[in-house]
Amino acid sequence: MTIPATGPVRRSRDVPLLVERARAGDPRAVARLITLVESGDEVLPQVAAALAPYAGHAQVVGLTGSPGVGKSTTTNELVRALRARGHRVGVLAIDPSSPFTGGAILGDRVRMQDHATDPGVYIRSMSSRGHLGGLSAATPQAVRVLEGAGCDVVLVETVGVGQAEVEVASLADTTLVLLAPGMGDAIQAVKAGILEIADVFVVNKADRDGVDATVRDIQGMIALGERAPGEWRPQVVRAIAARAEGIDDIAAAIDKHRDWLERHDELRRRREARAAAEIEAIALGTLRNRIGSLRDGTQLATLAAQVAKGATDPYAAADELVAQLGS
Amino acid sequence: MTIPATGPVRRSRDVPLLVERARAGDPRAVARLITLVESGDEVLPQVAAALAPYAGHAQVVGLTGSPGVGKSTTTNELVRALRARGHRVGVLAIDPSSPFTGGAILGDRVRMQDHATDPGVYIRSMSSRGHLGGLSAATPQAVRVLEGAGCDVVLVETVGVGQAEVEVASLADTTLVLLAPGMGDAIQAVKAGILEIADVFVVNKADRDGVDATVRDIQGMIALGERAPGEWRPQVVRAIAARAEGIDDIAAAIDKHRDWLERHDELRRRREARAAAEIEAIALGTLRNRIGSLRDGTQLATLAAQVAKGATDPYAAADELVAQLGS
Repeated sequence: MTIPATGPVRRSRDVPLLVERARAGDPRAVARLITLVESGDEVLPQVAAALAPYAGHAQVVGLTGSPGVGKSTTTNELVRALRARGHRVGVLAIDPSSPFTGGAILGDRVRMQDHATDPGVYIRSMSSRGHLGGLSAATPQAVRVLEGAGCDVVLVETVGVGQAEVEVASLADTTLVLLAPGMGDAIQAVKAGILEIADVFVVNKADRDGVDATVRDIQGMIALGERAPGEWRPQVVRAIAARAEGIDDIAAAIDKHRDWLERHDELRRRREARAAAEIEAIALGTLRNRIGSLRDGTQLATLAAQVAKGATDPYAAADELVAQLGS
Repeated sequence: MTIPATGPVRRSRDVPLLVERARAGDPRAVARLITLVESGDEVLPQVAAALAPYAGHAQVVGLTGSPGVGKSTTTNELVRALRARGHRVGVLAIDPSSPFTGGAILGDRVRMQDHATDPGVYIRSMSSRGHLGGLSAATPQAVRVLEGAGCDVVLVETVGVGQAEVEVASLADTTLVLLAPGMGDAIQAVKAGILEIADVFVVNKADRDGVDATVRDIQGMIALGERAPGEWRPQVVRAIAARAEGIDDIAAAIDKHRDWLERHDELRRRREARAAAEIEAIALGTLRNRIGSLRDGTQLATLAAQVAKGATDPYAAADELVAQLGS
C-alpha cells in the first residue's frame, strides 16, 4: 500500500487520535504521521511520546548500493517474500538528493504496482535533504511510526552515495549492501568503508559476466578482515532480483544475522547505540535552534561585529553565546 | 617560506611569547600557532584572544576548482605577482581528503621551490579532515595567525569537491573559481552552486581547444543571473598560469572586487557574517563536547537504554540531556 503525502497536522490534540488510527492500520494516519516526522513539526515530541511503547518491535533492515545495482527490484521481491511468510512490511525509500518530500519517486511508482493494493505493506519515499542531521534525524522516527503501525519488518532503502550508506547502517539491525558485477564496486566498497557496515553482501544481476570475480573479490576482502571468535562474518549472496532468483537466500541470510544478533545480545547493544545517537542528534538540534534564535536577535550580530573589528575573539564570543543559551 | 609542521604547545604561558614572535615574523612561531589551530589545542582560546587585535588586516582570497585545473600553478604565480607589489602573502592549501596534518603536500613541494627562501611568504598545507566543522572551524583561525604575522593577503586554496568550495567562499573576501576548457566544468558549476560563490572566474589553460566555448558558457550563465543595480557582476579572466600569462588580469580583477566591496560596505558585512558563522561553529563545538562528556558518562547510556526498550521517547530523553548540560 502506498502512503500518499499529506499536509501537516497543526493541532497537538489530533496526535493521540492519529496514533490510535495508525495502530489500527489506517494508511492515511500512517502517512500523516510520517509527514509530521519529515517536516520536523512542533508536535513531533508528542508523536514520539505516543509511539514510544511500540519501539523495538520491528526488525530494521537497511539496503544500500550504488545507482543501477537493482535496489528497487530487490526490495520489491524481498517484500513479496516477507509477505509470503506472513509479515507486515514497511518500506522507507530515502533519496538523499531529492528535493521533493513525501512524494513517490519513479522507482516506487514502478515497484508499487505489485503491492499497491496490499494492506500489509506500507511504502513511503522520504527525502533527507534539508533535514539537519539528514537521515539520522528523521528516519528513526519514521521507523517508529511503521513499528507503531504493526510492521514486523521495516526495510530502509538508500542510494549508496556519500554518507547515506553509513548512516543507514547506524539505524539498521541488519545492513544489506547490493553490488553488481562489472561496476568496480568491490574495490570502491573498501574505499568507502562499506566492508565495515555490510552484514550481508548481495551480488545482484548474477547472470552477468564477471559475477564470479566480484564474489571472489568480496570474499577475499572479508577473509582479510580480523574477527574475534563468534563475531559475525559477512555473508555473500547471489541474486537475480529481476527474475526473483536468490531472494529466499537473501531472506535466509537476514534471518541468520537476526539470530546471531539475538544470541550475542548484539540486538540490544545496537538498538541502545542507535537510541543514543538519536538522542544526541535531537539534543544538538535543540541547541542549534536555540543558537539560531539568538542569531535572529541582536546578540550574535553584536558579538560578530566586535569580533570582526578585533574588539574580542571568537572563542570569548562563543562562550558568551553559550552562556546566553542557559539564561 | 614553507612553514614546517611542529609539535603542539602544551603550556599556556608559552602563548604570549609565541604570538609576539609570530608578530616579529618568525616562521617557526607562525608554524606552531597554526599547528595549535589545526589540533584544536586547549590553549586555542588564548591564542585567539592574543590575535584578536590584528583581525581584519589582510584581504582573504579563496581559490577553488576541480583537480587538474591548475590551482597550484595559479597560486604560485599570484604569489609572485603580489610579492612584486610589495605585499606579504600567506597561503593556506586545504586538502579536505588528506589524512596528513601539518605536512606539505606534493603540490606545495613543487610550488614551494619558487618561494621557499622568501621571508615575505608563508605557505602551509592544512587538512580539514577530522575537524568537526571542517574548514569553517579551523581555517578562520589559521587566517588570523597569518594576519597576525603581518600578511597583507591570505590565499586559501581548496580542491573543489563537495562542500569545501562553498565553505571557502564563506570565509573569503573574494572567491576565485578556476576552470579549464573541455572539462565540462561550466555545466557542473551551475549544478554545484558555484555560480553563486564565484566573484571571479578564471578560465585557465586558455591555450586549449574549447576555451572560447567555456568562456561563452560562463558568460551566458552570468547573464542569466538577476542582479540589483550596483551589485557585483562576476568577472571572467583568461589565463595560462603555466606560462605566467593572465596573472596580472587576475590580480586586477581581485583589486576591482576589493574596491567594490569597500565602496558598498560589503567588506564589513561579509566579515561580520563570517565572524558570526565562526562564533556559531565554536559554540556548537562547545555544546557538542559537553554532550560528548555526557556520552562518556552513564547519563546518555541510561537514557538510551530507556528509549530502546520503549520506557521513554527520544525527545523527552534529549530534553533531559540538554537540561543536564546546564547543571
